[in-house]
Amino acid sequence: MRSRVTEIFGIRYPVIQAGMVWVSGWRLAAAVSDAGGLGLIGAGSMKPELLREHIRRARTATASPFGINIPLLRRDAEDLIRVVLEENIRIVFTSAGHPGKYLPMLKDGGCTVAHVVPSVKHARKVESVGCDAVVAEGFEAGGHNGFEETTTLSLIPQVADAVAIPVIAAGGIADGRQMAAAFALGAEGVQIGTRFAATEESSGHPLFKQHIVDAQEGGTVLTMKKIAPVRLLRTPFALRAVDAEARGAGEEELRELLGQKREMRGMFEGDNDEGEFEAGQSSALVREIRPAADVLRALLEECAAATDSLTGLSDVFRPR
Amino acid sequence: MRSRVTEIFGIRYPVIQAGMVWVSGWRLAAAVSDAGGLGLIGAGSMKPELLREHIRRARTATASPFGINIPLLRRDAEDLIRVVLEENIRIVFTSAGHPGKYLPMLKDGGCTVAHVVPSVKHARKVESVGCDAVVAEGFEAGGHNGFEETTTLSLIPQVADAVAIPVIAAGGIADGRQMAAAFALGAEGVQIGTRFAATEESSGHPLFKQHIVDAQEGGTVLTMKKIAPVRLLRTPFALRAVDAEARGAGEEELRELLGQKREMRGMFEGDNDEGEFEAGQSSALVREIRPAADVLRALLEECAAATDSLTGLSDVFRPR
Repeated sequence: MRSRVTEIFGIRYPVIQAGMVWVSGWRLAAAVSDAGGLGLIGAGSMKPELLREHIRRARTATASPFGINIPLLRRDAEDLIRVVLEENIRIVFTSAGHPGKYLPMLKDGGCTVAHVVPSVKHARKVESVGCDAVVAEGFEAGGHNGFEETTTLSLIPQVADAVAIPVIAAGGIADGRQMAAAFALGAEGVQIGTRFAATEESSGHPLFKQHIVDAQEGGTVLTMKKIAPVRLLRTPFALRAVDAEARGAGEEELRELLGQKREMRGMFEGDNDEGEFEAGQSSALVREIRPAADVLRALLEECAAATDSLTGLSDVFRPR
Repeated sequence: MRSRVTEIFGIRYPVIQAGMVWVSGWRLAAAVSDAGGLGLIGAGSMKPELLREHIRRARTATASPFGINIPLLRRDAEDLIRVVLEENIRIVFTSAGHPGKYLPMLKDGGCTVAHVVPSVKHARKVESVGCDAVVAEGFEAGGHNGFEETTTLSLIPQVADAVAIPVIAAGGIADGRQMAAAFALGAEGVQIGTRFAATEESSGHPLFKQHIVDAQEGGTVLTMKKIAPVRLLRTPFALRAVDAEARGAGEEELRELLGQKREMRGMFEGDNDEGEFEAGQSSALVREIRPAADVLRALLEECAAATDSLTGLSDVFRPR
């Protein structure tokens, strides 16, 4: 048994740091890649030339491979991809859109491509168009989320049964016990967002990081379900959105309430009242802000301990 | 490393068959216990004297220990408990209510008691009043559900950190990979509902069992969130409830829509239009109706295989 995820991306450990908007700049991606994981720069909050700058800075900070996350719903997705190829990036994670449209361009450029999905149906599609791996992300994940509300525990075995390409588990994973669980479910890698959003190298606003550390169980909520479900920390804006939904607000009212640039105002600028703070249920497991390399090492140690404890238990499970 | 769950209940395998209303009669409980798991008779849909009859029949069908699930919100909860004690039952799982009120009565009667919770806060409470174990049940579970919407993957490690008593994982578990995952997360046992609802010995209506087998990913929905969140298969009544919620229906309207006896009409009588069919997201992983003992054996074999595969992977995780 092996993890194909380490092989296809040329990395040491099958741990991917999610390419989050406003959070995953060159510093975070380089720190994770340098420690043996796969760091991703989140292009979702960058114009093409800013992305180029982040790629170049990451290159000066690490010799290890890193990748770029590109939300394909961006109008200038093609411009972002062009920058990625011009800068000789060979690892791309796409999300929020249809990978088929841009895949030929990425594959012609020599890229290994993974796409993020919330459901089995989408996972099959991702495989059929020729992606190299699929990130299956459950209901507990921070940020944008599927309509099926399928949790990570439910989703991963179903996706592992449905596709032959490697499955990377995402959603709710903040510690090594959950990493081990993801592998037991059939994943060959994990993508971790919230835990890395609260690291020293994250470019998130200090208030955002502190909110993650402070959050307890129940500290996040899935809202905007009629337009584009998103999991947020329970800050004032999120609570207004929840109230609007409880009243039965329609799509138009929700779009108006959502307005513009709330992600930037929250996660990057620290506007507590008007901003959006995207985070997963895993916030409740994040207890301090640490350097990304320390986080990666702790994840691996916890995961190895959980794996060892299962070995000790395997006699309990074996039918007699 | 061991599972305290097998020790405290005196069973061979740490697999508990949930005591579901209308589904978990003496036949199912006896079949699971006889195969080495822990079968639970679901008293939630029984009057005290019917419960007594089920207990006596289960006794004739197996010499192995079995237990009773008692929803404490029942007005006659005390009468049910009296029957349990009179019939010398020594294993009780309580749910839906406050265990503290009835715990002295149960402990005086020599019972080992576990209580079902959806959150860390409730788990702490359960430990503080003196329960012997806690069942932590995630958002993906069928039937009644917590307000925090915490998923099993998120909930189990948090509860394992918060309490010293054994944690039994529930919600979304239908195969052995998920069982292994639950143990990696810190559980020492699993409680499985939906998978056992679709066995030959289940007293659920054949239409209910077939709905579970037919359900695909996204086939269940959490509804009635303003009154008492419940996860249902997407049958006509469930869809009416979802529509009402989307329109912003208030508590009163939802209570009226819910009415009476929908659980019985659906799961026991097979009324497709008017009944409620409670099932977890794990429905998507249930592909056939089998005898309960075969299900238990398959769970154990899959779990052992998943555990073995993790052992093979442990070098991948160990930090270098």
